[in-house]
Amino acid sequence: MKELFLLEPDVVFLNHGSFGATPKQVFEAYQQYQLQLERQPVRFFVNEASGLMDISRRKLADFLGTNHTNLALISNATTAVNTIARSLHLTNNDEVLSCSHEYGALTRMWNILSEKQGFTYREHLIDYYLESENQFIERFWADVRKETKVIFLSHITSPSAIVLPIAEICKRARAAGILTIIDGAHAPGQIPLNLDDLNCDYYTGNCHKWLLSAKGSAFMYVSDDRIQATEPLVISWGKTQNMTGTTLLSSEIEYQGTRDIAALLSIGDAVDFYRTNNWSQKLNANRHLLYKVRTLFGNLFNTPPIADQLFMPMMYAQYLPESVNPQMLKQTLLEKYNIEIPVTTIGYRNLIRVSVQAYTNETDIHTFETALNNIFHRIVKK
Amino acid sequence: MKELFLLEPDVVFLNHGSFGATPKQVFEAYQQYQLQLERQPVRFFVNEASGLMDISRRKLADFLGTNHTNLALISNATTAVNTIARSLHLTNNDEVLSCSHEYGALTRMWNILSEKQGFTYREHLIDYYLESENQFIERFWADVRKETKVIFLSHITSPSAIVLPIAEICKRARAAGILTIIDGAHAPGQIPLNLDDLNCDYYTGNCHKWLLSAKGSAFMYVSDDRIQATEPLVISWGKTQNMTGTTLLSSEIEYQGTRDIAALLSIGDAVDFYRTNNWSQKLNANRHLLYKVRTLFGNLFNTPPIADQLFMPMMYAQYLPESVNPQMLKQTLLEKYNIEIPVTTIGYRNLIRVSVQAYTNETDIHTFETALNNIFHRIVKK
Repeated sequence: MKELFLLEPDVVFLNHGSFGATPKQVFEAYQQYQLQLERQPVRFFVNEASGLMDISRRKLADFLGTNHTNLALISNATTAVNTIARSLHLTNNDEVLSCSHEYGALTRMWNILSEKQGFTYREHLIDYYLESENQFIERFWADVRKETKVIFLSHITSPSAIVLPIAEICKRARAAGILTIIDGAHAPGQIPLNLDDLNCDYYTGNCHKWLLSAKGSAFMYVSDDRIQATEPLVISWGKTQNMTGTTLLSSEIEYQGTRDIAALLSIGDAVDFYRTNNWSQKLNANRHLLYKVRTLFGNLFNTPPIADQLFMPMMYAQYLPESVNPQMLKQTLLEKYNIEIPVTTIGYRNLIRVSVQAYTNETDIHTFETALNNIFHRIVKK
Repeated sequence: MKELFLLEPDVVFLNHGSFGATPKQVFEAYQQYQLQLERQPVRFFVNEASGLMDISRRKLADFLGTNHTNLALISNATTAVNTIARSLHLTNNDEVLSCSHEYGALTRMWNILSEKQGFTYREHLIDYYLESENQFIERFWADVRKETKVIFLSHITSPSAIVLPIAEICKRARAAGILTIIDGAHAPGQIPLNLDDLNCDYYTGNCHKWLLSAKGSAFMYVSDDRIQATEPLVISWGKTQNMTGTTLLSSEIEYQGTRDIAALLSIGDAVDFYRTNNWSQKLNANRHLLYKVRTLFGNLFNTPPIADQLFMPMMYAQYLPESVNPQMLKQTLLEKYNIEIPVTTIGYRNLIRVSVQAYTNETDIHTFETALNNIFHRIVKK
């Protein structure tokens, strides 16, 4: 399976979650678009680009269970959430409610924007063991106030890798007239998605992570009634171009001056690859490896898991004991054992996060287990 | 010379100005960065990217005659001008003064932002023959009012391809306390630049046009006293990352979530290529071809030139007679003669714009001349 990818073969790559990896054939298609653009840029941009973007957008829409008119292709989920946040025009009496396991760059964004625009940004504190979906839903909902105008939640939290029960939250929010922005940065290709069923106002997702397209490819879903109000960060020709294959949303959001759109076009190729190879099945066939990691962490660290197994996607994260120097652990794993794995943070606490992809095998996890046992055995000895 | 590029050899490419073209060796370096990223994305983004960006930024700074701390690399000039415009926080009593030969997408941006934020966007009308720099400076300056807080001008105008005398405008503006934003979308690599001497507040430029780097590579220059006030469109980790090789400006503007930065890295390679090959000299050696085009247009069309030859960069544009259907002309040139050339617009009038690069040769211009003579001979006959 590993030979389908370009990842260096001698590295045990347990960090698919941060930047993803692209199969050779998708990567080749991606660079081929760049060559096509370079050979005759005018023909490419004027005659071909909008049609190719349309194909990529439609394939993705089909994969995500929504209409292509509700999607715009964009570089990454961070840019998508920024675009949405700037379109909200919140004021002094408004509040954005989120949770304490959000991605740090976007927490920073909400803090900066709330200070500038005068609205409140507040986080529901997850300091309890997540034992059931209902428990989270009720606890989260108890934090909703009359000032809450927007709910911003990750579908899969970045530092802690838990799948939040967003469907019920979106349903309640819609009934209460609260806007929902779901950051699915890690979701597409990792867990099943049906955006129309979800019925949120906004959903963002990276395609370069678990959908396996080239780096810098993502999307923004906007519900019908929010399309008109969604403003691009970069105002360019937009809808005045009237190009075939574009929609109101895509023409305003996607057209941002001359740039390389090859990564966005590779989304269509990635969807084809994912489907042709029954990737979802191959991915889930490796689920047992995650349980092994969960058991391993349970034996090594005296920290409890964050959530019940039902919240687990294809990543697993656990708090490190305070006695462990996270940077040293990460460095030792990489330099001594050639294992690439991230250390994440929630507040001042550190977590270690493992990704299991379809290309991950028993040997990888065994190597990881041996390395950790060696390292912690030594630490205990000292 | 043409064999240095990837452009289709059977097309007479007289539209370098729209999207540029990249030499094979720069294009290869560009795709090599993508492969490097794909092979070990964590090592690339965490250990290598900021150092490589630093190298690219420093080489560009040296080329542009400024300090690397005043530059941020960005996808294109349109995105750069949008970033600057959103950082201004203009209000009801403020005015942005521009001219009537600006790039349409940015005119649209100013109109939309001025309507939303309440400031005034006004254009100095160039409806006169530009005969001297002083003439333009005095006429433009006569349009400056006490409400004028910002002057926005192209260094080389997009539809009409004239070099505006911005140095004196910037000098007067600084003395008057008016901010200057110069859109040099077409300037870097086409005309000599020394940004420190120019002493404007903001300068934006594409590198993928005349500096020959990969598509989607540009920069934003910000004067020392404006760096603190310049806000990114996409708020991400920014300066909290503390990466070596970044500056305050670059960390906030360049870091926008996971994306392919290969085009930005190719700027360094393009500067090397440009210098090693004495490109500026090769470019100017072809200047006589532009004079030929100017004479040709003068003979064919009964429209006067827009400006004296002293305003001419390596592009030349002239108004088409009203009797000519611009789309049909463009299409005939492409389909029948394999000549790629753009038709631009100012208001309701159409212009034809020729770019001469170092790879343009006598045969190209001869083919173009023959084609035009054929087409217009036929039109006259009918």
